[in-house]
Amino acid sequence: MSYILVTGGAGYIGSHTVIELINHGYKVVIVDNLVNSSYDSVSRVEYIVKQKIPFYKIDLRDSDGLSKVFDDYPISAVIHFAALKAVGESTTIPLKYFENNVGCTISLLNVMKYHNVKTVVFSSSATVYGDATRFENMIPIPEECPTGPTNPYGHTKLTIETILKDLHASDPQWRAAILRYFNPIGAHPSGLIGEDPLGIPNNLLPFLAQVAVGRRAKLSIFGDDYESHDGTPIRDYIHVVDLAKGHIAALNYLSSLKPSQGLYREWNLGTGKGSTVFDVYHAFCRAVGHDLPYEVVGRRDGDVLNLTSKPNRANKELQWMAHLTIDDACRDLWNWTTKNPLGFHVKNYSVNEDAYGEDRVHTVEYPGFKVSIANYGATIIDIEVNGKPVVCKFDNLRDYHLPSNPCFGATIGRYANRIGGAQFTIGGKQYDVEKNEGANCLHGGSHGFNTQYFYGPIATHSEEDDSTTLKFVSFDKDGHAGFPGDLITTVAFKVQPKSLEFEFESSLSPKSSVDATVVNLTNHSYFNLCGEGTINETELLLASNNFLEVDSALLPTRSIKKWTRPDVSKPFTVGTAVFDNCFVLSDYSSKLDTRKERMVDVVHASHPGSKVKLTVSTTEPSFQLYTGDGVDTKGFFHRAGFAVEPCRFVNAARVDDWKKQVVLKKGEVYGSRIRYTFE
Amino acid sequence: MSYILVTGGAGYIGSHTVIELINHGYKVVIVDNLVNSSYDSVSRVEYIVKQKIPFYKIDLRDSDGLSKVFDDYPISAVIHFAALKAVGESTTIPLKYFENNVGCTISLLNVMKYHNVKTVVFSSSATVYGDATRFENMIPIPEECPTGPTNPYGHTKLTIETILKDLHASDPQWRAAILRYFNPIGAHPSGLIGEDPLGIPNNLLPFLAQVAVGRRAKLSIFGDDYESHDGTPIRDYIHVVDLAKGHIAALNYLSSLKPSQGLYREWNLGTGKGSTVFDVYHAFCRAVGHDLPYEVVGRRDGDVLNLTSKPNRANKELQWMAHLTIDDACRDLWNWTTKNPLGFHVKNYSVNEDAYGEDRVHTVEYPGFKVSIANYGATIIDIEVNGKPVVCKFDNLRDYHLPSNPCFGATIGRYANRIGGAQFTIGGKQYDVEKNEGANCLHGGSHGFNTQYFYGPIATHSEEDDSTTLKFVSFDKDGHAGFPGDLITTVAFKVQPKSLEFEFESSLSPKSSVDATVVNLTNHSYFNLCGEGTINETELLLASNNFLEVDSALLPTRSIKKWTRPDVSKPFTVGTAVFDNCFVLSDYSSKLDTRKERMVDVVHASHPGSKVKLTVSTTEPSFQLYTGDGVDTKGFFHRAGFAVEPCRFVNAARVDDWKKQVVLKKGEVYGSRIRYTFE
Repeated sequence: MSYILVTGGAGYIGSHTVIELINHGYKVVIVDNLVNSSYDSVSRVEYIVKQKIPFYKIDLRDSDGLSKVFDDYPISAVIHFAALKAVGESTTIPLKYFENNVGCTISLLNVMKYHNVKTVVFSSSATVYGDATRFENMIPIPEECPTGPTNPYGHTKLTIETILKDLHASDPQWRAAILRYFNPIGAHPSGLIGEDPLGIPNNLLPFLAQVAVGRRAKLSIFGDDYESHDGTPIRDYIHVVDLAKGHIAALNYLSSLKPSQGLYREWNLGTGKGSTVFDVYHAFCRAVGHDLPYEVVGRRDGDVLNLTSKPNRANKELQWMAHLTIDDACRDLWNWTTKNPLGFHVKNYSVNEDAYGEDRVHTVEYPGFKVSIANYGATIIDIEVNGKPVVCKFDNLRDYHLPSNPCFGATIGRYANRIGGAQFTIGGKQYDVEKNEGANCLHGGSHGFNTQYFYGPIATHSEEDDSTTLKFVSFDKDGHAGFPGDLITTVAFKVQPKSLEFEFESSLSPKSSVDATVVNLTNHSYFNLCGEGTINETELLLASNNFLEVDSALLPTRSIKKWTRPDVSKPFTVGTAVFDNCFVLSDYSSKLDTRKERMVDVVHASHPGSKVKLTVSTTEPSFQLYTGDGVDTKGFFHRAGFAVEPCRFVNAARVDDWKKQVVLKKGEVYGSRIRYTFE
Repeated sequence: MSYILVTGGAGYIGSHTVIELINHGYKVVIVDNLVNSSYDSVSRVEYIVKQKIPFYKIDLRDSDGLSKVFDDYPISAVIHFAALKAVGESTTIPLKYFENNVGCTISLLNVMKYHNVKTVVFSSSATVYGDATRFENMIPIPEECPTGPTNPYGHTKLTIETILKDLHASDPQWRAAILRYFNPIGAHPSGLIGEDPLGIPNNLLPFLAQVAVGRRAKLSIFGDDYESHDGTPIRDYIHVVDLAKGHIAALNYLSSLKPSQGLYREWNLGTGKGSTVFDVYHAFCRAVGHDLPYEVVGRRDGDVLNLTSKPNRANKELQWMAHLTIDDACRDLWNWTTKNPLGFHVKNYSVNEDAYGEDRVHTVEYPGFKVSIANYGATIIDIEVNGKPVVCKFDNLRDYHLPSNPCFGATIGRYANRIGGAQFTIGGKQYDVEKNEGANCLHGGSHGFNTQYFYGPIATHSEEDDSTTLKFVSFDKDGHAGFPGDLITTVAFKVQPKSLEFEFESSLSPKSSVDATVVNLTNHSYFNLCGEGTINETELLLASNNFLEVDSALLPTRSIKKWTRPDVSKPFTVGTAVFDNCFVLSDYSSKLDTRKERMVDVVHASHPGSKVKLTVSTTEPSFQLYTGDGVDTKGFFHRAGFAVEPCRFVNAARVDDWKKQVVLKKGEVYGSRIRYTFE
């Protein structure tokens, strides 16, 4: 299967187009130098499409680096977005604009030519027309309108069109689709990606959005004495999702050409319907729910009455048409804005630089409290209280891949703990899953969630409860390790000044070929309140002393035994006692989704050598307590940490009475919550 | 004093402009990547202007390299010629054209900006107008004519104009003069530089010139059914020297602006007078002296009737006007073509790669005979007969700079041999020159011609006598080492299959502040016919056994003694005899210019260990024979070679009877010839 290379795929229009490409069955590689965009948009696109998207942080002028991408992926076409795009900025640093926009394109085309990839969709702009009102009968603007941009940004776009035209003339095999955008607005309806302009926004709606969230005082309206119905100038605003779909239409059109046929052709991507500044203003105010401050000021140099597109050529030839309205766009923009008031920037949140895909480590930091989470295994890499780690952790992310890693900090799934005989039955159908602990299946097999790449995160900050949440998603394919059904699992890590709360949620994909599967999720952090040494002096207080009796295969006998030694109301020192037991709460829930259940403090832990106290709370019916006696990995040995794993009953998948805890049917939702609180 | 940086200064228009710049008192630095030009044009420009011109082989995209040039020279303005310029080629490799022309310009402008050099004269083209006949009333073409180039070359020129316009708009301190050339033709009247197109020439006159010298069969005339007086299309041909002067006018105009005033402005450089293809054809046939073959073929795509310039803006604002006619241009082109039928390529001639200025070594090679000559000291670096050197030579050019170098192969001047007491008198005025051998001045002092940089060479090949000649020139400034007068000296090395003949010529510069000086020139090769060992077994036959008796200061007593030992008609073996004697021919000439005198074989040399026989011949009245007893340098010791130095009488500058041999008055010419023949 061939790939579409998307340059500038981390940008506003690029990221929306990547989603459409994947929705239309294309495979995508993204190249972006991130000078004016954020990899967060790519990780959010991955979150949305639940697919890994190869990403390269490359400046297109790095021909060698770019050529390597063409070596590594069978690329059939390029959609070329990468460019500096601020009109105002371009008038102050024109050399930079030419150097970047034109230089990058020439380099890209050279590399494409070298790899015999001769299909390109180019992200141009209606700016190339300049003031189309200087001609008669050119409003709405057709592609035949003579060009004449009036700023360096527009000059770079027209220069690139010219280069592509000359290139096609020199070698008619080239296929170049020139898409001249009118005014892209809006955001993805998910609210997860959208425009994130640096500095003061140049465009009407991004500016208005910042007024709405209080980042700007008021909107300036440049002139209300034009000959429109309300006196403000008319432009052609197009929803970014409609625009993104235009690229698919162009790609399809190019694919429909005869094998040896080349092309150079321009298409307007616009709605054909003009809206005034006030039209847009009012639409956005409707979306926000109240009026926003504005001021009418003088006309702006170079502004003209009407720059509406004539999109007939694209309508007809590409069989593409914009469907969404400015109300749709305002709604989606407001959704994006309220969810991401600072764009991709999120308070207290940071990520390791120059790490993409599964090498990313996300850190949320409050004074005296820091949590780091990796995409790899949705793993808690570190929890630090007052600057000191309280969990077992490797210094290097690569070490989490070691076979000897005892699941340090990892999210455990699709099925935490043991399934006896690695076999279970749902609705009369028997499933055999991977045996990775003798005859049992442990923690979902040897390539469970702890070794999988989670997409995301969606990072958000809430002022309301001063929390920062990182939400990841995994897509576990039907048949992986023998488990049935495409399982979609989100893990949200909500960090507050002294606590970390997880929320797990799983459901079968609507497209899944089976109707039911089993799920059991937890987190496998190993606590050591001193950060080093053994846990033997740790004092624990458990919420229950009922536990599941197990046989020699470590599987429950189905009888719940009471652990008689400690007084359940008083902490005990762990000493050398070995625990690998599933404690059961007295009034445990048997629900599939426990999130609405009462959250119980199941373990309190402290240590005479540390000022840090830990409370593990959960909505789950049971928790495995493990004193880490099997730990033997790089730098860590037995009893280096203890794990508290709130989860469903061990082997529930095989025990009729407990099955409802773990059997997930299509349309149902599995859910749970766990919290680590430190004081 | 500030410098003008000329990019592409080795090219056709660039090289002519450099000459005009220097003629107008500017200092110049040239940057050229030489992909489409030859350093020979720079060395020929140096020959013409008799000045060293700093040259850097740099691609403008090498910002670091380019920036270094700005560090090294106080550059006040740039004239930017460097570009690929073949319209036809540009339609087949447009990416290369954009990459090179636009990429180089952006890089150049960035470096200029960094160094706060904001004055640029840009070499644009009337091509930016495209077909100006598409508008009414735009022939002759004024600068106001809308642009619309119809080929990638023209697109790159227009893009660069746009970049400069945007740059000036972003920072009004920039001064950009856009010079739109019409059709440059002709060559420098010296015939030393001109257009040297690679491959098949695109333009009328270069093509016609190649027809004239037999490199092309006939001229194709594309259509004779246009509405002109003879049916062929009308263009505006401008002599390259007029065009070059336009750049000086533009620079002067920019300098005349107020200190803080910037500018972006276009000027047509054309004559304003149209000529048809046939007009030019006939003019060139007149220059050649006979008609040249041509054929009328069909019209060429994109050709139009008339593209004549309206040069009024340049005439008025720049106070510049083209003065030369197409007859002038044809005469100069034909002069250039006949002198250089293969352009800068010369049969049998080659030069060391990537060496410029004084590091150049020029080699002329015939089967079994090779001569290499350096610009440094116009020095014979090597003479090889049948693959073996017959002169003392260093392996490394740098070693010729060693103070211990006993003038191996060098041209000796301004005054060869000794001037007693380093003092002489001309017209009653006494001159004191450098004492570098006791009280005497030897070989023009310690920084004589042997250590000076000679300009050129002008390399030419003559089929008539199968010779290849390298002609160098030096400009020895008034007062150097104490000698009076600006002395211009050319040394021509004429190589034939088994001989090397020198021709020396000196005259005082017409601008020289004194009316007379002294000159005595020779070459100081040390022969060793075996290429190694001492010369003791060498057998010599001398044309004379009369020699100048010398005193203890090695100065002539003015009596001519006869050396009695050898029979002058028979060779003798040198043995351990020490020679440093000036032998005088019996019927010696006392002329200042001996070149017309009879050439006498003054020394025959052979060696029992070598098959090579040498004859030294000259028109000079005497020759110094030196057995190299003072040689003591890197790899060579006494008697490593012997020198035969035909020249004027030793100390002639101080001896009234001999003075006319060496005293050169303004308007007179000093000349001599020497030949080394090998068999």
